[in-house]
Amino acid sequence: MRLRELAERIGATLHGNGDIEIRNVSSIAPATLADVVFVDDVRFLEQALECGAGAVIARESDLPANADTIGKPMLIHANPRLAFARAAEALRRAEAVPGFVHPTALIEQNVEIAADARIEAYAVIGRDCRVGARSHVGSGCILGAGVTLGEDCDLVARVTIYAGAALGNRVVVHAGAVLGSDGFGFARDPESGRYVKFPQIGRLRIEDDVEIGANATIDRGALGETVIGRGTKLDNMVHIGHNAQLGENVVIAAQSGVSGSAVLERDVLVGGQVGIADHVRIEEGAILGAQSGIPTKKVIRGKGIVFWGTPARPIAEYLRELAVLSRLARKKRE
Amino acid sequence: MRLRELAERIGATLHGNGDIEIRNVSSIAPATLADVVFVDDVRFLEQALECGAGAVIARESDLPANADTIGKPMLIHANPRLAFARAAEALRRAEAVPGFVHPTALIEQNVEIAADARIEAYAVIGRDCRVGARSHVGSGCILGAGVTLGEDCDLVARVTIYAGAALGNRVVVHAGAVLGSDGFGFARDPESGRYVKFPQIGRLRIEDDVEIGANATIDRGALGETVIGRGTKLDNMVHIGHNAQLGENVVIAAQSGVSGSAVLERDVLVGGQVGIADHVRIEEGAILGAQSGIPTKKVIRGKGIVFWGTPARPIAEYLRELAVLSRLARKKRE
Amino acid sequence: MRLRELAERIGATLHGNGDIEIRNVSSIAPATLADVVFVDDVRFLEQALECGAGAVIARESDLPANADTIGKPMLIHANPRLAFARAAEALRRAEAVPGFVHPTALIEQNVEIAADARIEAYAVIGRDCRVGARSHVGSGCILGAGVTLGEDCDLVARVTIYAGAALGNRVVVHAGAVLGSDGFGFARDPESGRYVKFPQIGRLRIEDDVEIGANATIDRGALGETVIGRGTKLDNMVHIGHNAQLGENVVIAAQSGVSGSAVLERDVLVGGQVGIADHVRIEEGAILGAQSGIPTKKVIRGKGIVFWGTPARPIAEYLRELAVLSRLARKKRE
Repeated sequence: MRLRELAERIGATLHGNGDIEIRNVSSIAPATLADVVFVDDVRFLEQALECGAGAVIARESDLPANADTIGKPMLIHANPRLAFARAAEALRRAEAVPGFVHPTALIEQNVEIAADARIEAYAVIGRDCRVGARSHVGSGCILGAGVTLGEDCDLVARVTIYAGAALGNRVVVHAGAVLGSDGFGFARDPESGRYVKFPQIGRLRIEDDVEIGANATIDRGALGETVIGRGTKLDNMVHIGHNAQLGENVVIAAQSGVSGSAVLERDVLVGGQVGIADHVRIEEGAILGAQSGIPTKKVIRGKGIVFWGTPARPIAEYLRELAVLSRLARKKRE
Repeated sequence: MRLRELAERIGATLHGNGDIEIRNVSSIAPATLADVVFVDDVRFLEQALECGAGAVIARESDLPANADTIGKPMLIHANPRLAFARAAEALRRAEAVPGFVHPTALIEQNVEIAADARIEAYAVIGRDCRVGARSHVGSGCILGAGVTLGEDCDLVARVTIYAGAALGNRVVVHAGAVLGSDGFGFARDPESGRYVKFPQIGRLRIEDDVEIGANATIDRGALGETVIGRGTKLDNMVHIGHNAQLGENVVIAAQSGVSGSAVLERDVLVGGQVGIADHVRIEEGAILGAQSGIPTKKVIRGKGIVFWGTPARPIAEYLRELAVLSRLARKKRE
Repeated sequence: MRLRELAERIGATLHGNGDIEIRNVSSIAPATLADVVFVDDVRFLEQALECGAGAVIARESDLPANADTIGKPMLIHANPRLAFARAAEALRRAEAVPGFVHPTALIEQNVEIAADARIEAYAVIGRDCRVGARSHVGSGCILGAGVTLGEDCDLVARVTIYAGAALGNRVVVHAGAVLGSDGFGFARDPESGRYVKFPQIGRLRIEDDVEIGANATIDRGALGETVIGRGTKLDNMVHIGHNAQLGENVVIAAQSGVSGSAVLERDVLVGGQVGIADHVRIEEGAILGAQSGIPTKKVIRGKGIVFWGTPARPIAEYLRELAVLSRLARKKRE
């Protein structure tokens, strides 16, 4: 892609030669002429201007006085980190890769695979599956019957998807993730004392632009649906229970768990190792600090408010409690 | 299965035509004539009676006055949820599926596979393994040497079992689970400062009717055995350390961890993200609230008593502490 | 290996016939003549001396008066557990196993595999990979392009390694682990409200003698490197975020998480389910109790000092706080 076009795509102002060809983003040290790099901190500007990159993304205020005489083209943006991320996205999409089905991939009956989709070695695609345009099913992925993938999805490798799950467009799933597994539901039989499995026959629906981390697990609905909303991002080893409903642009850090039938509204932010019990509702834009815990059926409300502790409370309150306790313990000691 | 037989199997009273054929359980909306549905809440009764299902499971007290004239057969049970779960189980077992070994499955020497077992694509079954009647080894499962599976087991897909593990009958293991892996044991060498691996050469034994969630891990014994007792249910990403002993009908929710040599007696209930340290004993029927933590060598005693917090204490005590602390912090603020 | 040589290798003093051949370590009950067993507790000494083992490792002080007349050779060491671990290591290395590439393994272009390396069924090895002498790539492992494994590595089974990761010598990786996956980094686009993925194009470097548990995940650097230092041991389901730096001989128990850019210096010990936020520094030899939490950018200092709680504080302080709180709550109740 010409640098001029890239500038336009990412909303940056071009300084210098817009005709050069850019193919990749890079960090500063290994950058070559076909790469663009970025500078978020003016201390690294000189290094960036001297590195092998074809162009540098930087802030207006960081632009050196002699920018025009340096010879290295620059893309000026108020948020270089965002501009760099956008550049990576734009360049990734520009790549056209030919479709293929590896000879060792097993494709069952009545499967539709787009001509430009890529199916890697030892993938297993069950009957009635659909794989959309430009989607990638990595090595060792297993798709149960009736799974649908939209366009531009990437199942990196060794992803397992149970029967009937539906993924939208541009969904990225990292290695080892399990999607659509049975929820954890049992009815105790009072006569025998044993647990009888409650049927887990619902579905999993994942909307567009979701990213799911390595070894994460998302259970399908027991009878109804589990839903992961558009643009939501789940880190490694996040667990989502059956019938949970995640809104748009929810972000959940590593090793957090969302229990059955919990609702996370749009723009909720969840730190790492947070535990959200069943039937909890986290309302729009609330923020849960790392390791906090939300007991069953609680409602957490407060756009932009941080909650912490178990049971989670507004962070100011929690910190006050910690301070009071610490003071008491110190007094006791003296 | 005739509805009459199903009624008998699940201990329900039949109203209406017992000759209809039922093949599956279903939720209300998509139900067809061969399905049975259930109603746990009288608000959904009308919907259920009008849906496509062949029969409805409901409570006696929810039975409409005109039940006999409705025409839809009903199965009356005091606990419709349990009856529905039992129905699912009875119908699942009634299905007879022919056995097969997929041509891409690799079966090593001296393996015994029951004629009606099903071995899916790209499964790898090590030497001296045994796979019992009607058991299913899903795609991409890997069984080390000498693994034994009883009857009616289901390794859904991509389950890895290390050499020597023994699974009983009707054990269900979800995708990505790892069974019989090496425990975490090292001896520090004072001369070099490095950790020398302590041999992990024991076994893993899983009794009948156990269910293990997606991406869970269970380590084998270091020298002795790790044991998962009959009827125990482990949710996704649960970790069980080496030499742990779990009794019958233990239930552990997602992302909890049980360290080496811990003992959980029968009927213990463990919430999500609970941490149980090594050599802990949780006595019969105790309940550990989500995210609680049990320090090393502690004994937790109290059938039906809920423990919470880290270190875990009886929940009443813990809540009292939280209340006192909150009051102090509020006072301080005023 | 002759018992005499084994004694020398593990630094033990030999009593009795050093000419016998030892091939394995074992627990007491199933031991045969080619096995060595150990006794850490004098109560088990008699049992050990009477078992089928060829030799017994024990403490000098536990040596019976009639040791010379018993006939069973003994290896005397001040730390029998360590000596036993060393014996296991020495015997494991003595085994020479012929190399092979299973016919179903897929090896892409320009791969170098040592003649005595073992590549199991359905492994996929991407272009430009290197597999060192005596390394084992288990069934179902997937190595992206340019991955390098040193000598004597063991990828047990179904390990996924993303492109470009470099593993040193004697690295053991258990089933289901994912190495070099994308870090969790997104830039929020204020115009659209959506998260744009920040490029995750750095590397993962794992030094010699590291062991990684089942279903663990380690992300590569965003731009730079994630580093796991020599001799470090990670238990099952540990998560390491992008650009984290772990020093030598760090030990992390199951289900703990280390966020992006955190630094754990050498000899740090981390209990289970600990959460370490981004940009934290844990200095040399500090110990983090199970379930403790370290908030963002904190520095934890104190060789041999145990920290506990969230936010983590020295354990003495934390226990004092717990005691004060418990006393207040009890008083309140009375």
